[in-house]
Amino acid sequence: MAAERAAASTIKIGVIGCGYWGPNLIRNFVEAEGCAVVSVCDLNLARLAAMKARYPTIEPSTDYREVIDDPAVDAVVIATPVSTHHALAREALLAGKHVWVEKPMTLTSAEAEELIDLAACKNATLMVDHTFVYTGAVQKMKELVASGDLGHIYYYDSVRVNLGLFQHDVNVVWDLAPHDISIMTYLLDAAPLGVSAVGACHVGNGAENIAYVTIHFPDNLIAHFHDNWLAPVKVRQTLIGGSRKMILYDDLEPSEKVKVYDRGVKVGENSGEKRYQTLVAYRTGDMYAPHLDHTEALRFATSHFLECIATGRCPITNGEAGLQTIRILEAADRCLKRGARWEVL
Amino acid sequence: MAAERAAASTIKIGVIGCGYWGPNLIRNFVEAEGCAVVSVCDLNLARLAAMKARYPTIEPSTDYREVIDDPAVDAVVIATPVSTHHALAREALLAGKHVWVEKPMTLTSAEAEELIDLAACKNATLMVDHTFVYTGAVQKMKELVASGDLGHIYYYDSVRVNLGLFQHDVNVVWDLAPHDISIMTYLLDAAPLGVSAVGACHVGNGAENIAYVTIHFPDNLIAHFHDNWLAPVKVRQTLIGGSRKMILYDDLEPSEKVKVYDRGVKVGENSGEKRYQTLVAYRTGDMYAPHLDHTEALRFATSHFLECIATGRCPITNGEAGLQTIRILEAADRCLKRGARWEVL
Amino acid sequence: MAAERAAASTIKIGVIGCGYWGPNLIRNFVEAEGCAVVSVCDLNLARLAAMKARYPTIEPSTDYREVIDDPAVDAVVIATPVSTHHALAREALLAGKHVWVEKPMTLTSAEAEELIDLAACKNATLMVDHTFVYTGAVQKMKELVASGDLGHIYYYDSVRVNLGLFQHDVNVVWDLAPHDISIMTYLLDAAPLGVSAVGACHVGNGAENIAYVTIHFPDNLIAHFHDNWLAPVKVRQTLIGGSRKMILYDDLEPSEKVKVYDRGVKVGENSGEKRYQTLVAYRTGDMYAPHLDHTEALRFATSHFLECIATGRCPITNGEAGLQTIRILEAADRCLKRGARWEVL
Amino acid sequence: MAAERAAASTIKIGVIGCGYWGPNLIRNFVEAEGCAVVSVCDLNLARLAAMKARYPTIEPSTDYREVIDDPAVDAVVIATPVSTHHALAREALLAGKHVWVEKPMTLTSAEAEELIDLAACKNATLMVDHTFVYTGAVQKMKELVASGDLGHIYYYDSVRVNLGLFQHDVNVVWDLAPHDISIMTYLLDAAPLGVSAVGACHVGNGAENIAYVTIHFPDNLIAHFHDNWLAPVKVRQTLIGGSRKMILYDDLEPSEKVKVYDRGVKVGENSGEKRYQTLVAYRTGDMYAPHLDHTEALRFATSHFLECIATGRCPITNGEAGLQTIRILEAADRCLKRGARWEVL
Repeated sequence: MAAERAAASTIKIGVIGCGYWGPNLIRNFVEAEGCAVVSVCDLNLARLAAMKARYPTIEPSTDYREVIDDPAVDAVVIATPVSTHHALAREALLAGKHVWVEKPMTLTSAEAEELIDLAACKNATLMVDHTFVYTGAVQKMKELVASGDLGHIYYYDSVRVNLGLFQHDVNVVWDLAPHDISIMTYLLDAAPLGVSAVGACHVGNGAENIAYVTIHFPDNLIAHFHDNWLAPVKVRQTLIGGSRKMILYDDLEPSEKVKVYDRGVKVGENSGEKRYQTLVAYRTGDMYAPHLDHTEALRFATSHFLECIATGRCPITNGEAGLQTIRILEAADRCLKRGARWEVL
Repeated sequence: MAAERAAASTIKIGVIGCGYWGPNLIRNFVEAEGCAVVSVCDLNLARLAAMKARYPTIEPSTDYREVIDDPAVDAVVIATPVSTHHALAREALLAGKHVWVEKPMTLTSAEAEELIDLAACKNATLMVDHTFVYTGAVQKMKELVASGDLGHIYYYDSVRVNLGLFQHDVNVVWDLAPHDISIMTYLLDAAPLGVSAVGACHVGNGAENIAYVTIHFPDNLIAHFHDNWLAPVKVRQTLIGGSRKMILYDDLEPSEKVKVYDRGVKVGENSGEKRYQTLVAYRTGDMYAPHLDHTEALRFATSHFLECIATGRCPITNGEAGLQTIRILEAADRCLKRGARWEVL
Repeated sequence: MAAERAAASTIKIGVIGCGYWGPNLIRNFVEAEGCAVVSVCDLNLARLAAMKARYPTIEPSTDYREVIDDPAVDAVVIATPVSTHHALAREALLAGKHVWVEKPMTLTSAEAEELIDLAACKNATLMVDHTFVYTGAVQKMKELVASGDLGHIYYYDSVRVNLGLFQHDVNVVWDLAPHDISIMTYLLDAAPLGVSAVGACHVGNGAENIAYVTIHFPDNLIAHFHDNWLAPVKVRQTLIGGSRKMILYDDLEPSEKVKVYDRGVKVGENSGEKRYQTLVAYRTGDMYAPHLDHTEALRFATSHFLECIATGRCPITNGEAGLQTIRILEAADRCLKRGARWEVL
Repeated sequence: MAAERAAASTIKIGVIGCGYWGPNLIRNFVEAEGCAVVSVCDLNLARLAAMKARYPTIEPSTDYREVIDDPAVDAVVIATPVSTHHALAREALLAGKHVWVEKPMTLTSAEAEELIDLAACKNATLMVDHTFVYTGAVQKMKELVASGDLGHIYYYDSVRVNLGLFQHDVNVVWDLAPHDISIMTYLLDAAPLGVSAVGACHVGNGAENIAYVTIHFPDNLIAHFHDNWLAPVKVRQTLIGGSRKMILYDDLEPSEKVKVYDRGVKVGENSGEKRYQTLVAYRTGDMYAPHLDHTEALRFATSHFLECIATGRCPITNGEAGLQTIRILEAADRCLKRGARWEVL
C-alpha cells in the first residue's frame, strides 16, 4: 500500500535514535507546524527518560518495531548509527511510512538503491538529512552560482578538520566528507567522473583519521576535501573559484559566513613579440558578504520534509542525493584501500 | 682550482638578476658584515640604473660573463628565471666562484646533481635560497620538533594559495611548493618514499594553476600541499600533527605565527565487552605561542652563506636540499602529466 | 521567620518571568540536582503555554503572588524587567523565600540596600545573576590575578558593542556595563573611588545608545568600558594590563577566550647623563591560552545558588556585588545627566 | 622674499632628522619625480653614514643650519623630535623655504599659529605629515562619507594600542592620537566643541601611558580614542557609525581594511497603545569591502607636497590641520592635568 499523503491532517512522527543528533530532530519536529512526535525509540534508558521528561506526551520505547509498526505513525525519523540505517529504513518503507534518514544514508550504494526503489514503489517520501544544504549560507551560494555570477566554476576546495570525534564504525571520510559532498552536489550543476583519495591511519583500528579526497569532473572542474580528526583547531572553510567571482565560505564565522570576491584573471592575446608567454592580467575588485538567513537549518529541513510528505514533492536532499554521496564515499574507500599510486622518488 | 676560503678578508659578491627578489638580496649583502657587493648584472637597463642610483659603488653590467669572469668576485648570487639557473651556476662554479642560487635550484634533478658534483669538486660553497628555513618561525619549529615535544609526527599539511602571480615558465607547484618542501624537509627527520599529485589548468598555456601534492613517507607519515594561483584570499597555513602536540603555523599572523597545542588522543586498551570498538580519549590542554625572532630571514641567510664560505661549513640549505626539492617537483610533474588515476563513479 | 535551609531535601523553585532569559534559567534549574521547578509565572500566555508544553509538571500562572505565596516554594527566581526587580524580590524575601534576581539587581542603590538588609534579617540567600562570573574564562582569570601572576594591575579595558537590542526602560550602560562591572569587581581586589562617563543618544527616547564609562581606583588603577548599541559588529573584548603579564579576553573566540601575554616594560635607573629621559625596556615573551572549562556558566551559577541555600554560604555574586554594580551605574547616570565637562577648543 | 614656486624645475630637498621616520621620507623623496634630495642632517654620525652609503650624492651634515642656509635648497623636511619642530620650521620659513614637518606639528598651538602666519607671509607651502590621510583606506572612507552613503554621522571610535614605544618628551596621547585626530578631522565635516580626557601613568616619569580622549561635536556627534602604550597586542581599529551605514576600519587587516555595513536602526512612530516605548527596528543588510589603492601613503604625500610647491595649492594636511590637532592635544592635556571629575561612589 502506498504511503498516504497527509495534506490536511497532522503528520505523526516516530523517531528512532536519541543520541547526539536525535534530540535536535525531536525538538524541531515538536516545534514544527502540522506534525506531532508521537513516539521515540532508543536502547539507552537514560536517554529515553530524558526525552520523556522533556516531552511527556511522547511514547518512549526500546523496541524500534513499536515505532515502525504503529499504525498511527506516518513518518519514521532514523538517527541511529550508519550500519543500521538500511535495515530500519527498509522496514519503515515496507510498513508504508515516509522516511527521514541521517547522513550518510547507508553503508553501500546497493542498499541506498534498494531504499530509493522501495520508496518509489511505496510512493513514500524518502529524505536524507544533509542539513547543511538547508543553511542560509548554502542557499545563498546556490543563488549566486545558479545566477551565473561566479562565471564558469573552476574548483571547489574544502577543509573540514578538528580534534575528534573518532567514530567506531567509519573512517574520517565517511564522517566528515558527506557534508561537503552534499553541499558541492547541490551547488554544482555537474556530474563527477571519478574519485581519487589518499589518507592515513595513525590511531586505533585501521580507519583513516586523515584523508584527502579529490573529485574529478568534466571541463577541468576539480573538487578537493581535506578531512582530519587529528587537527588541533577546528576549520570549516571552503573556496569556490569561478571565472568571474570567487567565494570564501567559512562556517565558523559568526555572521559573515559567505564572502564573494570580485577577483580573477583575464588572459590576453599573445602578441608576436611575446609569443612565448601568456598575458595574464589580474582583476581585484570589491568583496561583499551578503546578509544570510540565520534560521536554524534543521527547522527548514524538517518543514521541507513535512511539505514533501503533504504534497508529494521530491525533497531537495532525496534518495538520489544520498546515493550520490555513498557512491563517492565508496570510491574514496576503494582508493584508500588500494593505497596511493605514487611516483617513487 | 678550488674556490678559496676568504676567512679573513672581505668576500666580494656579484649579483646576476635584479628583478623581484634581486634587490632584496643586494640590500642584505650590502648591509652584511664581511662582504661587499661589487657588481650587478641584468638585461633590463632601467633596473640596472635603479640599482646604480641606490648603490653607486656597484658596477652595473648587462653581460653576466663580466660578473662571472671578474677575478675580484668571490661569490656569485643568481636571481634569474629558473631556466637559466643551471647554466649560470655551472659557469660560476667552473670559474671557481661560490654560488648562491634562488629556488627552485634548477629545472631538472640531473642539472642539480651536476652542480652539486661541481661544487664538491671545486670545494665551493653552493647554497640554495630556501629563505623560509631561516625565519624565526621555522627555526622555532625545528627546535620543537627536534626536542621531541611533538612526539611522533603524523602529518604535515600546508595551504599556500593566493591570486597570481602566474609564472611563464613553470606551473603553480614549481612556484609555491618549494617553500613547503624545503620547510618540511628541514623539520622532518624522514626520507620521503614517493609523490602523488592532482591538479588542473584553467587559464592560459597548459601549466597547472591549482594542484594538490601528497608526499608519502614511511610509518604512515603523510604530507600534503595545496598550491593555488586562483584563490581570492592569501593563505599561508601549515598544520603539523604529532602524537603529543600539534602546531598551527600561520605565516600571515603578524606576531603569533607559531601556535603549539597540547592536544591529541590517547588510545586505551580494548576491554572484553567492547572488543569491537577502539577506546579513544581526547586530550585538550593549553595552547602557547612562543616568542619568535623577527629578524629578516634573508639577513640570517646571507650571513649564513658568508660564514659557510669563510669556514667551509656546509649550508643548511645546500645543494642536496635543493636537489631533494627538485626531485619532488619532478615527481609531482610526472603525476600531473600522466593524469589522476581515479576510481570511476 | 527565617528562610529555612533545605540541606537534605529538594529545593522547590518558582520562576517569575519567561522572556528572553527565563527559559534558560528554567532549563538549568530543571536539570540541576537537588531542586525542582514547581511554578512559573508570566503575563504572556503564549510563553506560559510554551513552558507548560515543555515541562508539563510545572504549574503556570499569570499572577506572581501565586508563586510567592506558595508555601511549597523555597526560592523565587526573578527574571522580569529591571523596574520590577525590587518589588518582587522584596515580597519574596518578606514571604521567607530565598531569591535569585537577574542583573541589574534593582533600579536604585537604596532598593538594593533594602533587599540586602531584608535578606540578612530573614537569613535568606540573595543572589544576583552576574552569569559571566561563573564562566570558565572568568574563573581562570580570577585564578591568574589572585595568584599574582599578572603582578600589579594597571588597567582594565572592555569593549562590549553590537547592533541593538534597544531596551525600553534603560540606557546602554544599564544594559551592557553590568557584565563588565561584575567581572571586574570579581577579578580586582580594589575598591573604586569614583566614576566618570560620557555618552550620546542618537535614536529614540533620550536614553544613551553609546557610552564610555571610566572607573577610578586608588594607585592609578583605571577601568574603562565602551558600551554601544549601534555598532555594526559584535565585540566582546577585554584587556587587563599588569606589571608582569597581560590578558586579552575575547568572549567571542570559540575556544581560546583567554590569552596571557608575558609582556611588559621594565623601568631602569636614570643615569646621570640622561637624567631627562626614562629608560624603558620592553619584555616580549611567549603567549599562552589556558584550557578553559566549557561548562555552561548558568549551570555553575544555579548549582552555586542551590548550594548556598543548602549550606547558608554567601553567594559569590551576592547582594553586595549587585549593589556595587548599581552604585556604579547610578554614578555613571549622574555623569551622563550633568553632561561632559569638556575643555573648550 | 617669498618662497619661489618651482614649477618647471627640480625641487631641491634638504632633510633634517634621520631617525625612525627620516629614512622613509628620504627614500620617497629620492624616488619621487621632479625633486632631488640634496642634503641630510642628523646629530648621529652613524645614521648619517648609513644615509651617505645608501645615497652617496646626498650631502651629510650635523649642523641643521647648513641645510636651511643652503640657497640651493627649496624645501626643508623636518623629522626631528617634536620639541624642535617649531624652531627648525621657523628658521626654514624665515630662510624662504617650503616646509614639511612631522606630526605633531609643534608643542603648542601658539607655535603652530606662528608657523602658519609665517608661511602665509612668505607664500611658502607648509605641510604637516599626517601620513594616514594619504592612505587608500582613508581616501576611500572620505569618498564614502562625502557621498552621504553613511547618512548622518553618529560617532567615531578608535582604538590605537600596542606595547611601547615610550616617548621621552610626550605622553601617549601626543604619540598616538594625532593619527586619529587627523583622520577624523579629514573625514568629518564638523567643528569640535570641546575635549575631555582621562588617563593614567603607570611607568616612568609622569607621562600618561594610557588615555581615553573624547571629542565633543554639535548634534550629539561624539568621537573617542583609546590610546595605550601598555597593551599586549597591537590594535588599530576604528568604528564610524552613521544613520544609514557603518564602517569598520582595521588598519592591520592585510587587504580588507575598510568594511562597510548596511546596518542600522529605524525608529518608528509610537502607537497609542505603546506610547511608553520607542519602536526600534533593526536593519541588517550586506557588508562590503571596497577595493583599496595600496600605493604607499608616503608616496602620495610626498608627491602632493611637491605639487603644492609647484602650483601654490594648499596641502590637504596644511598648517591649519596641524594646528587643529595641537589644539585638541592641548585640551586633552589640560583635562589630564586637572584630573578626572568623577562622581564619588
